[in-house]
Amino acid sequence: MSNGPITSTIHTMADVWEAYRDELDGVERQIRENLDSSVTLVNTVAAHILSSGGKRVRPLLLLLSARLCGYGGRDHHQLGSLIEFIHTATLLHDDVVDEADIRRGRRTARKVWGNQISILVGDYLYSKAMAQVVEFRSQGINEVLAEACTKMAEGEVLQLYYNGNPAMPEADYVKIVEHKTAGLIAAACRMGGIIAEAAEDKQEALFRFGQYLGIAFQVADDTLDYTANGERLGKTLGQDLRQGKATLPLLHLLQHCSEPDRRMITDRMETRTLSEADLDRILSLMAEFGSIIYAMDRARTYIAAAQHELELFEDSTARRALAVAADYMITRDR
Amino acid sequence: MSNGPITSTIHTMADVWEAYRDELDGVERQIRENLDSSVTLVNTVAAHILSSGGKRVRPLLLLLSARLCGYGGRDHHQLGSLIEFIHTATLLHDDVVDEADIRRGRRTARKVWGNQISILVGDYLYSKAMAQVVEFRSQGINEVLAEACTKMAEGEVLQLYYNGNPAMPEADYVKIVEHKTAGLIAAACRMGGIIAEAAEDKQEALFRFGQYLGIAFQVADDTLDYTANGERLGKTLGQDLRQGKATLPLLHLLQHCSEPDRRMITDRMETRTLSEADLDRILSLMAEFGSIIYAMDRARTYIAAAQHELELFEDSTARRALAVAADYMITRDR
Repeated sequence: MSNGPITSTIHTMADVWEAYRDELDGVERQIRENLDSSVTLVNTVAAHILSSGGKRVRPLLLLLSARLCGYGGRDHHQLGSLIEFIHTATLLHDDVVDEADIRRGRRTARKVWGNQISILVGDYLYSKAMAQVVEFRSQGINEVLAEACTKMAEGEVLQLYYNGNPAMPEADYVKIVEHKTAGLIAAACRMGGIIAEAAEDKQEALFRFGQYLGIAFQVADDTLDYTANGERLGKTLGQDLRQGKATLPLLHLLQHCSEPDRRMITDRMETRTLSEADLDRILSLMAEFGSIIYAMDRARTYIAAAQHELELFEDSTARRALAVAADYMITRDR
Repeated sequence: MSNGPITSTIHTMADVWEAYRDELDGVERQIRENLDSSVTLVNTVAAHILSSGGKRVRPLLLLLSARLCGYGGRDHHQLGSLIEFIHTATLLHDDVVDEADIRRGRRTARKVWGNQISILVGDYLYSKAMAQVVEFRSQGINEVLAEACTKMAEGEVLQLYYNGNPAMPEADYVKIVEHKTAGLIAAACRMGGIIAEAAEDKQEALFRFGQYLGIAFQVADDTLDYTANGERLGKTLGQDLRQGKATLPLLHLLQHCSEPDRRMITDRMETRTLSEADLDRILSLMAEFGSIIYAMDRARTYIAAAQHELELFEDSTARRALAVAADYMITRDR
C-alpha cells in the first residue's frame, strides 16, 4: 500500500484531488456497487443525484483522516460511499423542503420524478447506508454516524423554525450550521480515525477539525449568496433571503443598520417579496457595514481553529492535504 | 419478574392488552423520555403523532416474542419505543406522500405544521431511533432493524411506481406489502427473540411469524377499504382506488371482470376520477366475483402460516397472547 505522493507535491486542492484520485475512484466504484435495490426506480433516482458532479468532500476527508492516522486498508471505499449516500439522502429531502428545481446545473430529482419519490428514495439511501454501516460491526462508527444524522435533522428543523424570521440569535445560526452541515463532516473525519484505530485524543481532534471546517464551509457558502464575482455573475444573488433564510451576513447587517432598513429587510423576509432594488440596497448596506467581511472573518477563524487541531499530528502528506482542503473550504466558488 | 397472568385468562385481544398493560405503560414512559430534542418544535410535532392513539402493536409483539422465549428483563421498554419511533417516522412521510389530512381522527402533522416539518421530523425520529438502538451494542438488533428500514423504503417506492397503474402483478403487490408493512413487524418479533437470546431457529420462526402476520394485516387493511360495516358506515370507501393504489381485491376483480368494466376501472385509476356510481359498480362487481372473499381468504392463509410458526414453542401465556394477537390482525376494524 503506497503512502501517497511525496509531501512537497501537495500545494493546491488540484494536487489533493490528483494525489488521491485512485482512492476516490474506489469510492465511486463502491457507490455504483451499492446501488443494488431490487426496485429499479430506486437505483435510477439515486444514480441521478449521485452522479451529478458532487465533489465527494466527505469521502475525501474520511480517507485523509484515516491516512493521517497511519491507516493502510481499504475500508474507506465502502465507508466513504455510505457517507455520500447519507449526504445524498439529505440533499433529496432538502430539495423537497426548499422546493428547489435545479442542483448543480441539473434538474432536481423532485423536478424529474416528483416530491414523493424524492422523499422515499432519500429514506432508502439513508436506511441502506445504516444497514451497510452496521456490517462493519464497529460500535464507534455506528454511534458517530447515527448521532450525526440525528443532529442533521434537528438542525434542519431549527432552520425551518426560524424561516421567515430575521430575529434569530447568532448562537442559533451557529447551532443550525453546526448541526445540519458540520456534524456529518466531523463524523467523516472521526470515522477515519476510528478505522485507523487512532487514540481517543486523535479521534476527538479529528472530530473537532471536521466540525470547525464544516461550520466554516457553511458560513462561507451562506456568504457567497451575497457576493458577486466572476463565476457568479449572471447568477441570482440573495436566494437564501428570498427563501426566508437569515444567514450570518444578514444577521450582522440587521444588528448594525438603521431601523427603517431593518424594517424593510424584515418585511421582505416575512412576505417573501424581494425586488432587485431591495437586494441592491441590502448589498450596498452589507458593504457599508462590513457584513460580508465580518462573516468571512468568522469563517476564517473557524478554519484557523480547524488547522490548530492538526498540530496534534506529525507532518505527512495526509496532514498537508487536510490543511489544503481546509483552506479550500472557504475559498472555492460553488 | 412476573411471568404474567395465568394462561387461561387470555382469550381476546382485550385480555392481551389488559394482561400486558403495565409493560406497555413502560413503553409509553420511554417514548416520552426519548422526546428530548434540544429543538422544542421537534418534540412538539413528534408528540402530536405519537400520542394520537396508535395501538403500539409493534412494541406488543416485541414484548410477547421476548416473553415467549423466556425473557425476564426490561430492554423491550426502550426497544419498543424505538420501533414505535421508526413506525411513526414512516407515518409522517407517508402522510406527505399520500397528501393525507386526517390520521386517526386528528389533523396530520403536515396539515398542522406543513410538509417540510413532517419530512424533517420524520428524519429526526428515524435517526434518533437508530442512534438509541446502537447503544444496545447488539449486532443482531442493528442488522435486523436497518434491513427492515431499507425494505420499507423500497416497498414505498415500488408502491409509488405502480401508482395509477392497475396492471400490477399480484406478486409485486405482495412484495410491496411484505416490504412496507411486514418487514418492521417481523423485525419487532425477531428482536424479541434476540433480547431473550433465543436459538437461531426460534428467532427465524419469530421473524416469519411477524412477516406472515404483517402481510395478513396489510391485506386485511386494504380489503377493509372496500368493505362497509357498522363502524365504517358514513366513512368513505375506495380511498386507495381514488389515490391510484391497486390492492388485492381490485387486482382480483381486474382479472375476472369483463373487458368494459376493466377499462372503466383502469380509466378511473389513471385519471383519479371515481364517482359514487363507479364505486357502487365496483363494489357490486367485487361481490359478484368474490374479490373480497378472495382477499380475506389470502389474509387468513397468511395468519394460519403465522400460527404454524408458533408450534415451535411450548404453550405459555405469551404464546396464547401471540395467537390471539395474530387473529386480531385481520378481524379488527381500524
